[in-house]
Amino acid sequence: MGLRVDLNSDLGEGFGAWSLGDDLALLELVTSANVACGFHAGDPRTMQRTVAAAAERGVVIGAQVSYPDLVGFGRRAMEVAPADLTADMLYQLGGLEAFARVAGTAVRYVKPHGALYNRTVVDPVQAAAVAEAIRRYDPSLPVLTLPGSALARAAHAAGIPVVAEGFADRAYTSDGHLVPRGEPGAVVTDEAEVVARAVRMVTEGRVAAHGGGEVPLQVDSLCVHGDTPGAAGLARAVRAGLEAAGVALAPFAT
Amino acid sequence: MGLRVDLNSDLGEGFGAWSLGDDLALLELVTSANVACGFHAGDPRTMQRTVAAAAERGVVIGAQVSYPDLVGFGRRAMEVAPADLTADMLYQLGGLEAFARVAGTAVRYVKPHGALYNRTVVDPVQAAAVAEAIRRYDPSLPVLTLPGSALARAAHAAGIPVVAEGFADRAYTSDGHLVPRGEPGAVVTDEAEVVARAVRMVTEGRVAAHGGGEVPLQVDSLCVHGDTPGAAGLARAVRAGLEAAGVALAPFAT
Amino acid sequence: MGLRVDLNSDLGEGFGAWSLGDDLALLELVTSANVACGFHAGDPRTMQRTVAAAAERGVVIGAQVSYPDLVGFGRRAMEVAPADLTADMLYQLGGLEAFARVAGTAVRYVKPHGALYNRTVVDPVQAAAVAEAIRRYDPSLPVLTLPGSALARAAHAAGIPVVAEGFADRAYTSDGHLVPRGEPGAVVTDEAEVVARAVRMVTEGRVAAHGGGEVPLQVDSLCVHGDTPGAAGLARAVRAGLEAAGVALAPFAT
Amino acid sequence: MGLRVDLNSDLGEGFGAWSLGDDLALLELVTSANVACGFHAGDPRTMQRTVAAAAERGVVIGAQVSYPDLVGFGRRAMEVAPADLTADMLYQLGGLEAFARVAGTAVRYVKPHGALYNRTVVDPVQAAAVAEAIRRYDPSLPVLTLPGSALARAAHAAGIPVVAEGFADRAYTSDGHLVPRGEPGAVVTDEAEVVARAVRMVTEGRVAAHGGGEVPLQVDSLCVHGDTPGAAGLARAVRAGLEAAGVALAPFAT
Repeated sequence: MGLRVDLNSDLGEGFGAWSLGDDLALLELVTSANVACGFHAGDPRTMQRTVAAAAERGVVIGAQVSYPDLVGFGRRAMEVAPADLTADMLYQLGGLEAFARVAGTAVRYVKPHGALYNRTVVDPVQAAAVAEAIRRYDPSLPVLTLPGSALARAAHAAGIPVVAEGFADRAYTSDGHLVPRGEPGAVVTDEAEVVARAVRMVTEGRVAAHGGGEVPLQVDSLCVHGDTPGAAGLARAVRAGLEAAGVALAPFAT
Repeated sequence: MGLRVDLNSDLGEGFGAWSLGDDLALLELVTSANVACGFHAGDPRTMQRTVAAAAERGVVIGAQVSYPDLVGFGRRAMEVAPADLTADMLYQLGGLEAFARVAGTAVRYVKPHGALYNRTVVDPVQAAAVAEAIRRYDPSLPVLTLPGSALARAAHAAGIPVVAEGFADRAYTSDGHLVPRGEPGAVVTDEAEVVARAVRMVTEGRVAAHGGGEVPLQVDSLCVHGDTPGAAGLARAVRAGLEAAGVALAPFAT
Repeated sequence: MGLRVDLNSDLGEGFGAWSLGDDLALLELVTSANVACGFHAGDPRTMQRTVAAAAERGVVIGAQVSYPDLVGFGRRAMEVAPADLTADMLYQLGGLEAFARVAGTAVRYVKPHGALYNRTVVDPVQAAAVAEAIRRYDPSLPVLTLPGSALARAAHAAGIPVVAEGFADRAYTSDGHLVPRGEPGAVVTDEAEVVARAVRMVTEGRVAAHGGGEVPLQVDSLCVHGDTPGAAGLARAVRAGLEAAGVALAPFAT
Repeated sequence: MGLRVDLNSDLGEGFGAWSLGDDLALLELVTSANVACGFHAGDPRTMQRTVAAAAERGVVIGAQVSYPDLVGFGRRAMEVAPADLTADMLYQLGGLEAFARVAGTAVRYVKPHGALYNRTVVDPVQAAAVAEAIRRYDPSLPVLTLPGSALARAAHAAGIPVVAEGFADRAYTSDGHLVPRGEPGAVVTDEAEVVARAVRMVTEGRVAAHGGGEVPLQVDSLCVHGDTPGAAGLARAVRAGLEAAGVALAPFAT
């Protein structure tokens, strides 16, 4: 059996008259679509269009769940009480499911967005609230998060599958955490280097650590960003690089 | 076989810190709960609580879908394009379904709220957009609307069951329409008269018309309002009156 | 005294992470900026940035007031009660005024946006509600609307100055109304023709009517759209054409 | 010169169809009204009504500014960037000012609401962002906050007057901080004790500390809560107790 990995990207992140990113180009490249569910982006019509376009191309649909913060695009941590956070997750999951259902498919995984993604890496309370929503909704739905995160632990405890995510364009510390954005060298911008890092993560299970040395890293899915100019070009290069290295691109969920 | 009718009420119409109506009292009286889905009222936590309380009592859950207008409580007509309206309906249906699912039940019917209710009585375009959402989501879901409405026709055309709703506390014209609120005598406030009208609608299939005479009216479900002081008292009286007249109270959907 | 006209454009129509149009390019070309006030677009930070950029360039600031409808971008007519509409106008006016104040300037005029613009052309009730807000806030503030509109009449009745707006890229009927978008020929797309129409409106006070003949049209301000690709280029051409025809570009309000 | 103190309460905290608290009763008792500005509560119509009712009774109007969080009623801390927070404050200030202007008065002070109140007690960054908004809008506007708070320091640094607030129904630690809600004894519910504490704070400048001893406390304004059943009754008792002790009730701002 050969090597394989999933490519995921955030999609459907427009809202009403506003659009963001080149969804149609990315849908030709990724295997999993993290579709915004209305809380940080994604009005119902945009959700419906995005889900339909993904389904037509056989791209697997995941719920990109967020704090309720349109004006902040879900990028601001919020002190949401666990019961409220669980309810927020369920509402978003259900809303997206309706569009998946009418497109003849289903929501296949969950990925927290933005500040909620980062918060559930470190906060066991909010992580448990997210896991609780998935457990009650459908415990067979995997959650996409950083390996070793609080959410990974909460998901394990709740009996939910965990899918380990890697970022080829982000620097890692020697203990496997992401170097925070804003620190020098946190984001890798050179295309060739991003491709090389992606290939190495998948084929060797490790990546150069920030500050020297290497860090082991087992990833099931690589995130390619969709909201920057040239995003589709970088995704295309990563995909081509992986295929050239003999890696099959395939969704983790089916 | 004896006579039977459903009693429905609008529930879960609080939002965050704000509450509205005495949901727990009404849930002991009605057989169907029109649960607000977040667009005119009903944040996710309120939706979850309302659905759980209804499910515990065996009250059937319907989606009370609305225009997106929290500040106007869904009471203001909006020129929403059909494709947007269909998407709005699907999102609300799905959001509510998630809470029904985790409560071990399902959404069993759809009832438009407020301005959307009134608009879809007369507007075939918006009525068709609502019916299209139900048809694509689950064509076995009944829609609750006025007999003879544009929505009833659109639902028939789409192959969706229609449940005819009656209002014992509203005056009817001689051709079976509601006398618009604001006109003298439009709302019946005397409890005994409301009860008598409810009983007559169900047992005789007619009701006194505004301005004299009678109007035939076949209703499957009677609406009892939940958001006025004394709402639960009136609902209790209507229920008692119907039972005393030998009418069984039972949900139309199961 | 030579001929003069104002050039206005809708600006600040992003929201949070979403941007729309090339505001900085347009601010070099127009004399009046219709700044979105948060109800259809324009979060507070965007409003502050837009107002500051306009003030730095000496562009006059107007309040582009809207129905409360972010997801619909204010393009959907709503049945808002007059007292609510007046309050909505006041809130938006005040919110924008705060940013004008900290930028060392003030809100100098009011222009309804989108569906509210169109509705107040024909609906005397909503027009009066808008005029009432301006009258109570500051009756010296002009309102920018179509000549002959219901809002122009309501403003006159309320003692508010009216500024007549023209659209060089829109076809007019022989009685001076806009041909509705969607009808063939409603929008003029040829740059040279738009420029010629703009010049003729200002220098001759008339324009070719849709279907033949001419229509007299006295305009104080020409609207140049900002949200389409090439918007800045068209605005630049209109401005150059007017200047070449000896028309001075100057704000109507100071 | 006799003793005097201000009584303030949160008012206008309804939203659209939802109401909260007995504003009209409280407006007869307090000298300062913290009016919600639309971000945690207070749609424009509610703001207009509340401001008009306060102005008619000579109650001074302050801006009760909040994080943008309707569904959470502004009770959840948010990681809002300073520039965004400053803009949020300005928008709310301006929106409220419009209603004050049409009521023939003006916004006279600023009080952060809920989670923003608590956060700006301890967080110098968010405190500075709030103070910056006031400084730029009108540096003569006082800010109402806990004595010794980060916001008090930021306001001093920005040249803004600080008004010290006390809570007669909350327990204080021996170093003058509030005992966090949720801890035993954090909230004083006995009416006579609340009144006695209010009188002692104002006439003696101290209050019994939680766990024994006393704590000195110089307060310019006492907060009476408006959103609990019996709120008006407690406010009436506090007011009567203060007057019986020879304390004049008067607004701090004029």
